[in-house]
Amino acid sequence: MLGNFTYCNPTKIYFGKGALDGLKAELPKYGKNVLLVYGGGSIKKNGVYEKVTAILRECGKTVAEDAGVMPNPTVDKLHEGIERAKAAKADFILAVGGGSVCDYAKALSVSVNCEEDPWDKYFTRFEEPSCELVPVGCVLTMVGTGSEMNGGSVITNHEQKLKIGHVFGEEVFPKFSVLDPEFTFTLPKYQMVAGFYDIMSHILEQYFSGTDDNTSDYVMEGLLRSLIHSALIAVDDPTNYEARSNIMWTATWALNTFVAKGKDTDWEVHMLGQAVGALTNATHGMTLAAVSMPYYKHILPYGLAKFKRYAVNVWGVSAAGKTDEQVAREGLAAMEAWMRKLGLVMDLTSLGVTEDMLDDLVKSTLYMQGGYKVLTPAEAREIFKESL
Amino acid sequence: MLGNFTYCNPTKIYFGKGALDGLKAELPKYGKNVLLVYGGGSIKKNGVYEKVTAILRECGKTVAEDAGVMPNPTVDKLHEGIERAKAAKADFILAVGGGSVCDYAKALSVSVNCEEDPWDKYFTRFEEPSCELVPVGCVLTMVGTGSEMNGGSVITNHEQKLKIGHVFGEEVFPKFSVLDPEFTFTLPKYQMVAGFYDIMSHILEQYFSGTDDNTSDYVMEGLLRSLIHSALIAVDDPTNYEARSNIMWTATWALNTFVAKGKDTDWEVHMLGQAVGALTNATHGMTLAAVSMPYYKHILPYGLAKFKRYAVNVWGVSAAGKTDEQVAREGLAAMEAWMRKLGLVMDLTSLGVTEDMLDDLVKSTLYMQGGYKVLTPAEAREIFKESL
Repeated sequence: MLGNFTYCNPTKIYFGKGALDGLKAELPKYGKNVLLVYGGGSIKKNGVYEKVTAILRECGKTVAEDAGVMPNPTVDKLHEGIERAKAAKADFILAVGGGSVCDYAKALSVSVNCEEDPWDKYFTRFEEPSCELVPVGCVLTMVGTGSEMNGGSVITNHEQKLKIGHVFGEEVFPKFSVLDPEFTFTLPKYQMVAGFYDIMSHILEQYFSGTDDNTSDYVMEGLLRSLIHSALIAVDDPTNYEARSNIMWTATWALNTFVAKGKDTDWEVHMLGQAVGALTNATHGMTLAAVSMPYYKHILPYGLAKFKRYAVNVWGVSAAGKTDEQVAREGLAAMEAWMRKLGLVMDLTSLGVTEDMLDDLVKSTLYMQGGYKVLTPAEAREIFKESL
Repeated sequence: MLGNFTYCNPTKIYFGKGALDGLKAELPKYGKNVLLVYGGGSIKKNGVYEKVTAILRECGKTVAEDAGVMPNPTVDKLHEGIERAKAAKADFILAVGGGSVCDYAKALSVSVNCEEDPWDKYFTRFEEPSCELVPVGCVLTMVGTGSEMNGGSVITNHEQKLKIGHVFGEEVFPKFSVLDPEFTFTLPKYQMVAGFYDIMSHILEQYFSGTDDNTSDYVMEGLLRSLIHSALIAVDDPTNYEARSNIMWTATWALNTFVAKGKDTDWEVHMLGQAVGALTNATHGMTLAAVSMPYYKHILPYGLAKFKRYAVNVWGVSAAGKTDEQVAREGLAAMEAWMRKLGLVMDLTSLGVTEDMLDDLVKSTLYMQGGYKVLTPAEAREIFKESL
């Protein structure tokens, strides 16, 4: 750990079968008016909506709803939510859904009482909130983003063709999150595996950066091995509780700030994927999957030692009698085979991207400084093109 | 993760060179009267005392001192500390030292306003505090116990020949801890390596339990590999900042509750070691080192699959052409070689234990239920005897 840092993660987690009962301990701590935030209505089909609203009634809450949060929540939806929260005089925001719903709830939390335009303040100037926050709790129904235990919030502005994330400080973290792996069982396979790859990508964005010796890299190798193992079980047997619970907990720790401490991080795959998300509304995890292989093959020569370590420690590649580059490329090949076994989308064409969108994609991409090679727009264009 | 759990760890960490400046952000949150708790005075030799008291003065605090906390803090010392804290009307306890000092500060935190006898309430009946707590902050000068980010507190009662730990809930966790790896540089080698083995043992106590598939086990393999690697560097080069910082952070995560979540744990090595501590005042980490090999060799047949996994994933033992037991025993042999390379005490005789103490040791041992074999007192006696 060569870097200095502070660490604080106050979110309380209720994990396991029946974890929703945690709401009964948490909700009484907050005011009477709850804004219930959710997505397209899948929680009404799988019974989670009914269970949550029953507990809200039991706790004597007055509930207003803000439904229809989309996979890439937009700044327009955020403005709609602000009006709903104000009308309901919301004391608390309860987000029920996946990462998009949690991200949106946090954006709402810092925006309801904000006197400036939240897009400008938080997603352009990246300022911290200066207004009173509306506290947030989460009930997770889909894993991947880690949003349940961090300060991250990604919002899309279609007008500006931008999908931008702000990582807020600990006062914006959810006060609590309910993680019941069984709530994820009914998710369609496409969304399930996209979430798995989102987790994978979160870890790799933090792993493929820096050349120092760092405890976090060892921990990430453990998280990766757990994820790789459990994902193969879950894709064949989606209601395997043990596999789904391991994946759910791995997802949380992949992005709750722990594994980034004291080290550099990259995040360029997310920048490429978010550019696709800004233009297509494709599922986030699939945008990452589609650009990952061309990206990693491109930067491998610049971070050869780490890609070799990845091959050996995570994929069990034997280094005996091979060049470092051979070992490293075998690691990426093993990863690609795993991705195909999961059924991930491996090309942007399947996500609705066409060659005439390349210029806009390059313009919508943010270029990060922490990876083994800082991309030029020309290189990003090449990677997008190879990903078609 | 087959088990249900809650997780919450609100301690704020300031980590790295100059991390002591975190005190300037934290101390103003608490009242004027600070009880400064420390040990035998090594902090006066290495300059930490001067730095800490300068910041306390800068923050306008009235400081009372409670020095002389011993390696195994006693219930007698605790009663002395309660009187000092009451006389000083302490609003805040600042612990500066290693795990014993942090443990003691937490025991003090829950005892100052406790109307019952704290030994009976907390270390015999294991109750949670019902009085007002005095908040605690820590400045760490020695790594190993993880006490800086958990609710654990181990107190020794010489009259009853007992050394007992209570794991308190999150309200007893330190509000913040300052972790500057450079503060650990001046520690004598004996204490340094004892701390390293304490970390190792914390992880192994949680690893060698359960037969389920659990993300925590993968994470622990990462922490173990980081520790093994950095300890070998630090023992030759104690002021290697990178190694000492990795070890410091690994120690914190070995015992801040994270890696125990959703799984069984053992802790029998600590029970054996604490029995030795209750009778001899030997350095905690060395008591663990001295009993570990006889204990693990004894339980290996009952947890063979996990010992094999440990050999392969942590020590890089090749399984090809070997029986599971051969692989498992090679893992323990690699561990023993590493322990000897660090210069750990590998026998109880060197710690002042004699054969006539065996009966008392067996009586002072608590017998845990979570390991691969629940020890009988006769087995414990055998293990103590082999450890002589």
